[in-house]
Amino acid sequence: MQREKTSLPRSIADNLARQIKDGLLQAGAKLPSIREYAEGNGCSKNTVISAFDILTANGLIEPKRGSGFFVSRSVEVQPAGDEPTTLDRAMDVVWLMREQLQNKPEFLNLGEGFPPVEWLEETRLDQFHQRVVRTGVGSLFRYGSRFGYLPLRQHLQQKLAGYEIEAAPTQIVLTHGANQAMDMVLRYFVRPGDTVLVDDPGYYPLFGKLKLSGANMVGVPREIDGPDIAVLEEQLKTHRPKLFFTQSVGHNPTATDTSAAKAHRILRLAETYDLTIVENDALADLKPRSLTRISTLDQLRRTIYIGSFAKSVSAALRVGFLACDPALASDLADVKMLTHVSSSEYCERTLEAILSDGHFLRHTNHMQEKLRRATEAGVNALHALGAKIYKVSDQSLYLWAALPHGDDSIAFARAMLAQSVILAPGTVFSPHAEGVSPYCRFNVAYLKDPRFAAALKALG
Amino acid sequence: MQREKTSLPRSIADNLARQIKDGLLQAGAKLPSIREYAEGNGCSKNTVISAFDILTANGLIEPKRGSGFFVSRSVEVQPAGDEPTTLDRAMDVVWLMREQLQNKPEFLNLGEGFPPVEWLEETRLDQFHQRVVRTGVGSLFRYGSRFGYLPLRQHLQQKLAGYEIEAAPTQIVLTHGANQAMDMVLRYFVRPGDTVLVDDPGYYPLFGKLKLSGANMVGVPREIDGPDIAVLEEQLKTHRPKLFFTQSVGHNPTATDTSAAKAHRILRLAETYDLTIVENDALADLKPRSLTRISTLDQLRRTIYIGSFAKSVSAALRVGFLACDPALASDLADVKMLTHVSSSEYCERTLEAILSDGHFLRHTNHMQEKLRRATEAGVNALHALGAKIYKVSDQSLYLWAALPHGDDSIAFARAMLAQSVILAPGTVFSPHAEGVSPYCRFNVAYLKDPRFAAALKALG
Repeated sequence: MQREKTSLPRSIADNLARQIKDGLLQAGAKLPSIREYAEGNGCSKNTVISAFDILTANGLIEPKRGSGFFVSRSVEVQPAGDEPTTLDRAMDVVWLMREQLQNKPEFLNLGEGFPPVEWLEETRLDQFHQRVVRTGVGSLFRYGSRFGYLPLRQHLQQKLAGYEIEAAPTQIVLTHGANQAMDMVLRYFVRPGDTVLVDDPGYYPLFGKLKLSGANMVGVPREIDGPDIAVLEEQLKTHRPKLFFTQSVGHNPTATDTSAAKAHRILRLAETYDLTIVENDALADLKPRSLTRISTLDQLRRTIYIGSFAKSVSAALRVGFLACDPALASDLADVKMLTHVSSSEYCERTLEAILSDGHFLRHTNHMQEKLRRATEAGVNALHALGAKIYKVSDQSLYLWAALPHGDDSIAFARAMLAQSVILAPGTVFSPHAEGVSPYCRFNVAYLKDPRFAAALKALG
Repeated sequence: MQREKTSLPRSIADNLARQIKDGLLQAGAKLPSIREYAEGNGCSKNTVISAFDILTANGLIEPKRGSGFFVSRSVEVQPAGDEPTTLDRAMDVVWLMREQLQNKPEFLNLGEGFPPVEWLEETRLDQFHQRVVRTGVGSLFRYGSRFGYLPLRQHLQQKLAGYEIEAAPTQIVLTHGANQAMDMVLRYFVRPGDTVLVDDPGYYPLFGKLKLSGANMVGVPREIDGPDIAVLEEQLKTHRPKLFFTQSVGHNPTATDTSAAKAHRILRLAETYDLTIVENDALADLKPRSLTRISTLDQLRRTIYIGSFAKSVSAALRVGFLACDPALASDLADVKMLTHVSSSEYCERTLEAILSDGHFLRHTNHMQEKLRRATEAGVNALHALGAKIYKVSDQSLYLWAALPHGDDSIAFARAMLAQSVILAPGTVFSPHAEGVSPYCRFNVAYLKDPRFAAALKALG
């Protein structure tokens, strides 16, 4: 797969979007077929499919079964997702999450939390359906078990063994994505007013859940090699929190990894202060296997490990998992059952078929290679712009960097939004979205897009 | 499709399960192929597939890709699901939900909340994958929008119009099943200590969610034509609750429908006491379209309508929805986004493809016809046993009946469990699982199974 694929479908989609919006392609008009379009533009059919997909996701065109693609009749009423991108809405967690969930071809989304769809295509999700059907008709119709599909849990047992974490299938609960796993943990442990520790900066969708649960959120500053241990100890003494949510590997947004020495000290403190650590390992498949997890040192005694396939297989399947002590796993499976009955065994069987296939390892290797190249290019692009990068990583979906455009990332993001570039401003990654941060989170895959440099130039 | 299909796969699965457990088929042994088995036993391949599916779901056999089915090597450690059926565990909501989620061929599950899988096969879920793939590669990989896949919401707009409920797509939020919809409503409205009204008896998975949220649950007695209005008014005066969860059509477990007159009176009271009504219409596809919904009278001003496809298309897809006032819908979509990011657009596109297909209407018609026949047979079977049926319905997945075997359904269910028959005892359907109820909920599809009569006979 060529590197150009990352931006080519977007630029085709942009061109078509412009033609539609300028009225050159009118509502109801039939588009050329994918083959015609590919031949006419000298690109691959896959590129055209990706471009049409961007337009379809944005409601600009519509597939009609058996007869190709047409310009949507509802373009004017619903141009790009469910709500317009506005400059005046506060740039809070809800704003950023809403933006992330909309796919807007007219914007360059540098704050995007997701890898380019093209990087995931190699999983060939579309090829596995027949295998799923063959595993039995029940998989298509029934609720799943409260723990989730057993063969997938058995596969995850092996995956965790690769991180030297020993977990029986009865210690693994499949969830509707890693976010449901976090939410289940909150539902189980946290009552309004309870103090919960989080990485600062940290994973902002978690902050939304904590606010919803009425928790008292306290941030543990993130350093280049993991959480600030002195502050952590102080907070444990002061607040006696039950939980600390942290991300040891490929931390979002700082691209830092927790060192083995810090992991050990965190665990010692957890024992002293009876703390449970919730380790979110959502980016595991994008990082070298050898990095330190707190769960590996602890063997899931006072750690809850959370995993995801959103960024290495598919976010659309909504399959994640948690692993912990078996009695706690059973309790959390009950929480899941009481709130949602079950996760989707159909999606779980699909994921199991993909993960068990020999080519999945090749896919993750290829993806990591793409990520290494994109990270290198992204670091160079940021340095060329005079940016300060918090941690220069070899291989990270995100870079955390401050550009020489003022100290307020919110003001900077607003100005860039007016130039059709979406940034993820640093303040949103702070637990209470307080203070002023010069940092933004950049998705490495899009840093080389010329629209970024052009927007910066326009800003002066 | 023949009526015998309901029980034939089960009886084949039972036979094979017995052979495996008796050691006649040993761990690791290869089973005959589906074709061989069908020819050898004079049944269809579909029947064998269903039987093998039951065994697979229970971990007794395992498919190996390309080489057929084998007796599991782990049969002894994990005979039937994740935990054994025990007689001593309290028969509470958690017990019943755990039982429902396990598929145990050695038991007759008369308490089953689900239609026979064979009734759903006609949806041909397996045929729609290619259509989904054609709607764009993004559907396979990306998070969905916070409201959910727009064409499915447009379809639901039409579906609701069929019940004379007017709802724009911006009033519809897709969820991870109807249960997540209820949970989102609770997360949004209810703080610990708040009073919430529920049907009594009522939908027990809701009670689990309410307990988890710390709500003060108060039951409104269910009468033959809907909620007891006098008691409802008394409770509104006393408790000033925010929410009343009720099921107007095909009420679970009593098989009653709320009359139009009662629906009107409930709404009048809701206006007087500023109450929001959450109307769970999970069984809509199994009932005549003409029945009264409170949401139809109210047009979603103070009602939240919740829908499901678990029992008419597939529970494994985990796609449900809610419809309400547009501002509230946007808030609830944010709650969904904060807790779970998004629902599965992959599953939503699959469901949309099925619902938009001409044969779906035929499928629901066939399913209702099967249900009518099963209900008639079930009513006859219960009457023959001297049971008192609370409401003799023409067409209901459940019948709520008291058998002449003592007044305590819990004691009766325990005794039947020892005879390998699982019942859903009435007490569990009461908000606090208090008191003694002579009623049980029976799934009409299994009432004619001879094991039921045999177990009753054995009890004496």
